[in-house]
Amino acid sequence: MDSYSLPYTFSQRAQQLTSSTIREILKVTERPEVISFAGGLPSPKGFPVAAIRQAFDRVLEQSPQSALQYGPTEGYAPLRAWVAEDLKRTGADDVSPDEVLIVSGSQQALDMLGKLFIDAGSKVLVEAPSYLGALQSFSMFSPVYESVPTDAGGMIPESLTPERAAGARFIYALPNFQNPTGLTLDLPRRQALVERCAALQVPIIEDDPYGELRYAGEPQPGLLGLGRKVGATVIRLGTFSKVLSPGLRLGYIVAPRPIIAKLVQIKQATDLHTATLTQMAVYEAVKDGFLAEHLPVVRQLYKEQCGYMLDAMENEFPDSVSWTRPEGGMFIWVTLPAHIDSAELLGRAIQRNVAFVPGASFFAGAEVHSNTLRLSFVTVSEEKIREGIAILGQLIKES
Amino acid sequence: MDSYSLPYTFSQRAQQLTSSTIREILKVTERPEVISFAGGLPSPKGFPVAAIRQAFDRVLEQSPQSALQYGPTEGYAPLRAWVAEDLKRTGADDVSPDEVLIVSGSQQALDMLGKLFIDAGSKVLVEAPSYLGALQSFSMFSPVYESVPTDAGGMIPESLTPERAAGARFIYALPNFQNPTGLTLDLPRRQALVERCAALQVPIIEDDPYGELRYAGEPQPGLLGLGRKVGATVIRLGTFSKVLSPGLRLGYIVAPRPIIAKLVQIKQATDLHTATLTQMAVYEAVKDGFLAEHLPVVRQLYKEQCGYMLDAMENEFPDSVSWTRPEGGMFIWVTLPAHIDSAELLGRAIQRNVAFVPGASFFAGAEVHSNTLRLSFVTVSEEKIREGIAILGQLIKES
Repeated sequence: MDSYSLPYTFSQRAQQLTSSTIREILKVTERPEVISFAGGLPSPKGFPVAAIRQAFDRVLEQSPQSALQYGPTEGYAPLRAWVAEDLKRTGADDVSPDEVLIVSGSQQALDMLGKLFIDAGSKVLVEAPSYLGALQSFSMFSPVYESVPTDAGGMIPESLTPERAAGARFIYALPNFQNPTGLTLDLPRRQALVERCAALQVPIIEDDPYGELRYAGEPQPGLLGLGRKVGATVIRLGTFSKVLSPGLRLGYIVAPRPIIAKLVQIKQATDLHTATLTQMAVYEAVKDGFLAEHLPVVRQLYKEQCGYMLDAMENEFPDSVSWTRPEGGMFIWVTLPAHIDSAELLGRAIQRNVAFVPGASFFAGAEVHSNTLRLSFVTVSEEKIREGIAILGQLIKES
Repeated sequence: MDSYSLPYTFSQRAQQLTSSTIREILKVTERPEVISFAGGLPSPKGFPVAAIRQAFDRVLEQSPQSALQYGPTEGYAPLRAWVAEDLKRTGADDVSPDEVLIVSGSQQALDMLGKLFIDAGSKVLVEAPSYLGALQSFSMFSPVYESVPTDAGGMIPESLTPERAAGARFIYALPNFQNPTGLTLDLPRRQALVERCAALQVPIIEDDPYGELRYAGEPQPGLLGLGRKVGATVIRLGTFSKVLSPGLRLGYIVAPRPIIAKLVQIKQATDLHTATLTQMAVYEAVKDGFLAEHLPVVRQLYKEQCGYMLDAMENEFPDSVSWTRPEGGMFIWVTLPAHIDSAELLGRAIQRNVAFVPGASFFAGAEVHSNTLRLSFVTVSEEKIREGIAILGQLIKES
């Protein structure tokens, strides 16, 4: 549509918006006959319904007037304190509750960090590939992306050269079971990353939505704790979406006080504060150690689902295809032979009622590998996983 | 703090942020001995606790897996349909559910509309004075404000000249019981406003958080319905904050489809979607006509509170002071003699444990009337209203 023929004028950022590939794909996958490996939905089998229901009911019984009233922009104080304490499991021992800001899901944190750091033309460092939703949020503020290359071990810290980092407002990284690759940074890479960022004065945004969903290998310390020891500025994002439920829209930002102070002003202009009732109910649900009993159930579920898909791929995919073997999270990243464009493959797959996300969407910089794709194994039954992977294998062999 | 000495660089918009006057005042008013007319909190006596508790419990009993899962960015379809139907009370008969987008409170709508319409330097028309929170949201995108003058009847449509409107991205207006003035536009002004905006091709953002809180006078048709009849582009904002509870953070935007389509993309980058559980619970609470029985209780409460304050002002304020007599909503706007600066008066009032919001904060353009102030009468007891107004009257007389 030509905006000059309209009785209103959109901003340049709005004119440049295009509908996301994933969004268009997800529309197709709403048809019940489609086997969709495209989504990023957690398994509803992992939702602790009884605990959440009881928590909302208790809060509305015991503290309805505060739960239903406006609240502080910073968030509900007991929940901030719980988050600060919970971060000890990631190796961050000294987080104060006033370094925690509650947000309406991690996606909101990305929007707010875009507002905080990005002017038009600012350089932003992202992994290649990176989380599509973060790229969408940051892009509202017109940055210039610089990709940091990754290999089979995730982001390569040595590629963060002074030239590449010069003037960057931040680096955005998902160290655990990355979206889309499923890869995890090992300890030497984590250490190298925070040391380089400290030396180069590049703040790190550590996005860790999946960290609690580890079902193989050993937990690695978070960038927040490692970074603080070497003087790096680390801003950590967490969420209750994958440990309780995404429909609650609840997450948090951990950052040094001067950054929190600015983010509070930004959040006030963005949505005043996150729903008081939701914050109080989630605190009620988690305060007595509920996650310690609940998470093993979720991890076991995801481990089984991941195993079904890896097993099916081993059986059905030709030798020319390689893929990641995640230690947690929700995604497997597939690399096809160089001559296959995964967007073209998707067209043929949808004809056979199978969907996935082509990899090109996840690359922000100049480097795009269009022979890649992302598979989610979380919400599809074992039978359908085997059926869908067999179809994909067949289509790849025909390419 | 000098940002050049920091190991990170904020965006220009973040560097320009300053803490809001209201925010600083509200910190003072947290002391229990302070009689605060500064807040904008609805009365918790008006929260329908039992209905909300029952609604959350029913949704979590009947549809937990969808209530706790990610949902569509546009919002929960039955709630969108309810909003479209409910707008008939404002004279908008032909709103389709797909012209409704659910948001996380009206404040989020303002942020999203800033993203949609404002480039750095874009002209934005606002009432003088206007809602401070809207000015904060819009300011994140660096517009240039042009004030539209108001008189005792609210915004003056005739002041919307072609020169003033030229190139404006939109006009932002609160036609019912405006924040901060409490004034309501009469029908001739509404009609003149939509006709001028249609002719000048200026979209109208109609913000109506208080419309259901009318306790005197006759309801006026909304700008949305009036505007559609004459070809004006009207974007209407509504909220459940004042009819149910602000702690839920639930509101909506009504706009033509091409604008909704862009706003959906913007909302996806902003927070993916509004909490599914909250949307389903609010729909559960309101779907069978609950508001028709609940709202008369809230209106009666607000009417009494407003009456106490108007009566006290009549008794205590000198003849040199004038004020508005709202037909609904939460605020009274006071004009002091020209020589009194309300910020200076606030300093003395806080010494006597009385707080209000000085008027200067609400003026965005060149025209600032610093002899004005905003009083909220909603959450203070009759006794404390009379005590606080008597103190203010005494301080004004001493000025």
